[in-house]
Amino acid sequence: MVRTDLQLGKGKIAAQVAHAAVSAVLEAMEKRGWKEWLDSWLSEGQPKVVVKVPSETELVERCWKARSLGLICSEIRDAGRTQVEPGTLTCAAVGPGPNELIDVVTGDLKLL
Amino acid sequence: MVRTDLQLGKGKIAAQVAHAAVSAVLEAMEKRGWKEWLDSWLSEGQPKVVVKVPSETELVERCWKARSLGLICSEIRDAGRTQVEPGTLTCAAVGPGPNELIDVVTGDLKLL
Repeated sequence: MVRTDLQLGKGKIAAQVAHAAVSAVLEAMEKRGWKEWLDSWLSEGQPKVVVKVPSETELVERCWKARSLGLICSEIRDAGRTQVEPGTLTCAAVGPGPNELIDVVTGDLKLL
Repeated sequence: MVRTDLQLGKGKIAAQVAHAAVSAVLEAMEKRGWKEWLDSWLSEGQPKVVVKVPSETELVERCWKARSLGLICSEIRDAGRTQVEPGTLTCAAVGPGPNELIDVVTGDLKLL
């Protein structure tokens, strides 16, 4: 989930999304249930869907929802050396996890 | 390093770059020297620089160069369900590794 209200450049978006994906994978390695979801996801070729959210508030709310379902939600705050203020929440990765759970959080969002 | 000749959308680029980053991290976990580079990189906040290459040939050549220097180079081929033909090489992640080595491979490339 990437904030579109920040109007980041495509290279910046790619770096932030990659940061979120790596962080989610590292987090998934720490807990047994998540590790199983991680292994399934890796064996399927690590599918990723990049979607847009219009604001920080909505990104935060969707992360709460993800966590309430037992999913990883890895929020990324930018170091802010370019384009945005330091500490700006730019994006978040939900999962790895079952598609039907992830869809509860992001299924209605449009592709970036 | 992202191919610009494919003219991928920004969501697609983000997904491919994230795939490359996750793959590079998983590869780095497998070998002692790389693991040390990985740990340094994570402790620095996992810095990433997304740069552009104009063609598949140049991407492949730069990956050879990276590997000849002992660096990880994680090439990503798209499953091709959207935007490109199945198996198209879209991007590659170089590192984690020492900045001075990575700069030999990508230092002259422009930011995406």
